[in-house]
Amino acid sequence: MSKLLASLGEAVTASGLKDGMTVSFHHHLRNGDYVLNMVMDAIAKLKIGNLTINASSIFDAHAPLIHHLRSGVVGGLEANYMGSTVGRAVSEGVLNKPVIFRTHGGRPSDIESGKSPIDVAFIAAPSSDSAGNCTGRFGKSACGSLGYAFADAMHAKKVVVVTDNLVDYPLRDYSISEAHVDYVVRVDAIGDPQGIVSGTTRMTRDPVALRIADLATQVISASGFLKDGFSFQTGAGGGSLAVAQNVRNIMREKKIQGSFALGGTTGYLVDMLEAGCFESILDVQCFDLKAVESLRTNPRHVEISASHYASPSAKSCAAEALDVVVLGATQIDCGFNVNVHTDSGGYIIGGSGGHSDVAAGAKLALVIAPLSRARLSIVVEKVLTVTTPGKTVDVLVTQCGIAVNPLRADLRQQLARAGLPLVEIGDLRKMAEETNGIPQKPDLEEKIVGKVLYRDGTVIDGIRQVRRPAGA
Amino acid sequence: MSKLLASLGEAVTASGLKDGMTVSFHHHLRNGDYVLNMVMDAIAKLKIGNLTINASSIFDAHAPLIHHLRSGVVGGLEANYMGSTVGRAVSEGVLNKPVIFRTHGGRPSDIESGKSPIDVAFIAAPSSDSAGNCTGRFGKSACGSLGYAFADAMHAKKVVVVTDNLVDYPLRDYSISEAHVDYVVRVDAIGDPQGIVSGTTRMTRDPVALRIADLATQVISASGFLKDGFSFQTGAGGGSLAVAQNVRNIMREKKIQGSFALGGTTGYLVDMLEAGCFESILDVQCFDLKAVESLRTNPRHVEISASHYASPSAKSCAAEALDVVVLGATQIDCGFNVNVHTDSGGYIIGGSGGHSDVAAGAKLALVIAPLSRARLSIVVEKVLTVTTPGKTVDVLVTQCGIAVNPLRADLRQQLARAGLPLVEIGDLRKMAEETNGIPQKPDLEEKIVGKVLYRDGTVIDGIRQVRRPAGA
Repeated sequence: MSKLLASLGEAVTASGLKDGMTVSFHHHLRNGDYVLNMVMDAIAKLKIGNLTINASSIFDAHAPLIHHLRSGVVGGLEANYMGSTVGRAVSEGVLNKPVIFRTHGGRPSDIESGKSPIDVAFIAAPSSDSAGNCTGRFGKSACGSLGYAFADAMHAKKVVVVTDNLVDYPLRDYSISEAHVDYVVRVDAIGDPQGIVSGTTRMTRDPVALRIADLATQVISASGFLKDGFSFQTGAGGGSLAVAQNVRNIMREKKIQGSFALGGTTGYLVDMLEAGCFESILDVQCFDLKAVESLRTNPRHVEISASHYASPSAKSCAAEALDVVVLGATQIDCGFNVNVHTDSGGYIIGGSGGHSDVAAGAKLALVIAPLSRARLSIVVEKVLTVTTPGKTVDVLVTQCGIAVNPLRADLRQQLARAGLPLVEIGDLRKMAEETNGIPQKPDLEEKIVGKVLYRDGTVIDGIRQVRRPAGA
Repeated sequence: MSKLLASLGEAVTASGLKDGMTVSFHHHLRNGDYVLNMVMDAIAKLKIGNLTINASSIFDAHAPLIHHLRSGVVGGLEANYMGSTVGRAVSEGVLNKPVIFRTHGGRPSDIESGKSPIDVAFIAAPSSDSAGNCTGRFGKSACGSLGYAFADAMHAKKVVVVTDNLVDYPLRDYSISEAHVDYVVRVDAIGDPQGIVSGTTRMTRDPVALRIADLATQVISASGFLKDGFSFQTGAGGGSLAVAQNVRNIMREKKIQGSFALGGTTGYLVDMLEAGCFESILDVQCFDLKAVESLRTNPRHVEISASHYASPSAKSCAAEALDVVVLGATQIDCGFNVNVHTDSGGYIIGGSGGHSDVAAGAKLALVIAPLSRARLSIVVEKVLTVTTPGKTVDVLVTQCGIAVNPLRADLRQQLARAGLPLVEIGDLRKMAEETNGIPQKPDLEEKIVGKVLYRDGTVIDGIRQVRRPAGA
């Protein structure tokens, strides 16, 4: 019996999807993803409603989802990250139930344990054979790693692979095995290559961000971790990439032979791999085309599942073996708690992703942030939403100095000995307030529109509904 | 907290193993395996008893196990194959409970579904890092694929990796992820390289076997499957290898571009891959060093799990996509039922392995066998033990002609049109009896010492205790 079905509608019907069930999606196609919208349109046509969507992330490309939230096709949302477009609708109360926010490690943990069962998983696959052996390595919509999709594929009751590049059986270097796949649907395009991965990720030229990156690099140097065996994770933001570039220069100059780079991967990390800075890259998602190409061709660049990356219930994970991670913040407070969920107005504009996972796992978790952005303080008395608890954040680097978490007296001493410009985080807050004024409290309703689950599943914070301006 | 423990005894204690629990082993180290014996000795020293061993296969190297069966350390055995040494002890009634025989596909299916839970899995790993990321690709005890160990690693309550090649974290091209591993123990040697894999597998020079191989090749040619897209599995026996060599010659001569070769892998299949006969090898276990080397270096040669290979409860498996498989037989009867479990005396000397899985999956399942071996008939009225049901066997090829299963009238017509020497299987039995006489019935007790589970979990046959000669 062939698994190959003619349309998404046929696959939805074949899957047995019913009102109230849970469907899942992964976000490796990022802001180029077509699959979530196409599937939800097919479901809406079949008049199935009150579904829960468990997506590893929701991007602005998923704006059409708002319609399904309003119409009742979708009654619940779960995600590790949510872009500001759907975030705004949620913040304004489009759903009756709060969105469940998890982390990139917590999500597969909950799927594997059965805490968040999935009825039908839809796997956007840049290449697949007719049995569902699939990969993100090649095809016109190549996205590289499919790391976040493994738990869905292995634990959902039904699994539908959606591809725009159907290849001869057997697809040899599959990431997800046919053993898990029920149905395969070929569509014209699973995504817009422009949105799937940027051509290249670019480091910043902003002098403030460069100053912060220089200080962050000095912290890493002084921490003692930057030696043979060094392992490193950094994001795709311009400031993070500037840190990566600096670290690379030091490693090459001092002939430091690092161990591994982890996480979402950019061309900058690939350059470091190719320059011999690291033995390997462990890759849960690719941020740019250079990373995709490297994953396809370099055996030192390997795909890992989200569980292998960061699951708190895995018997161990790579995040726990990490030396240094460089993280961003929308807000950070005097207890070193970080918010990457909501903006200063209380609107949802992100989510943890792997933020709190690697902060907990890494030996040195560095947050880099300017004191303010667009005349809004980043360093505040208390964050509006706790994404990552302060006890897991070791140091904050701003353009006006470096604040060390009081829990890390050892690190503070090291950095002081190295002559780095240390400040108290409270003083950074004051500096920010002197520039921007005391931040206004956003106008929030009592209703909780988002529940933030920490990586271990405990509720770490709630996100409240934003009061819409009168007449809006 | 480090997973690295100083001894197997420490690992057994740390795992929480108690009387009556189930431990598991895989057999990629084949007759060179030290791990099962070492672990069972450590367990015996700790005075833990009445255990069940679920091993993918038991080899003659595991003869010391007989002592643990007698002493009560082990009260139950489950395996897909059992060599004649432990087989003899079992056949003579050393255990109170029957051995559970499964297939290579049925075993992971039962482990994954929870029908045969494993408390502690011991993974013999030719290379591992301290977190348990491990592989069979390299190390002094390299065995290639770890296909049979995946289900154990992913579903056992506790997982202990035993290695003789501890490498720096992270082992990059792991087969089994640290996410599943609780403890790692380094030992001097996990096996004897001489027994792990033979240096090379050799085809037969026996003229009878060569005649059978020629006929089998003609059957494959006439079947219509030997064209572009051809997929193929054969064992490591001399006759099977001769068929492979013939098939290779035809494929090269006619420029046939096959699809994949499946199953246990030999240098002969590697030669075919390298000669361009196949796009890929899907490898669940390596039979010789050339296969190990190929799996390590050739990206077209890929490791698959036992579930991906042949699980009946997988949503699909490679065995179901197979065109042609060449299988052996200890006995085959007039209903085309095949016995590879017991010899003519009723003694356990093998087991299904993947025999019944691929017979069920392949479009053409060919059994090759001489009419007799050592003056004992192979073609018999009724097999002593049904390993593989006759309805899944399409054709028997002997040196005295080809018998087609009456269920395959289409195939019979094709072979007749090709002018092949067709005979009735009953006539082959008569020829065998004329040479060897009517086989004596072995002297068996009522007690069942082995239960043969078909791949779907149903009991397909029982193996009875052999009556020991008086005074023995």
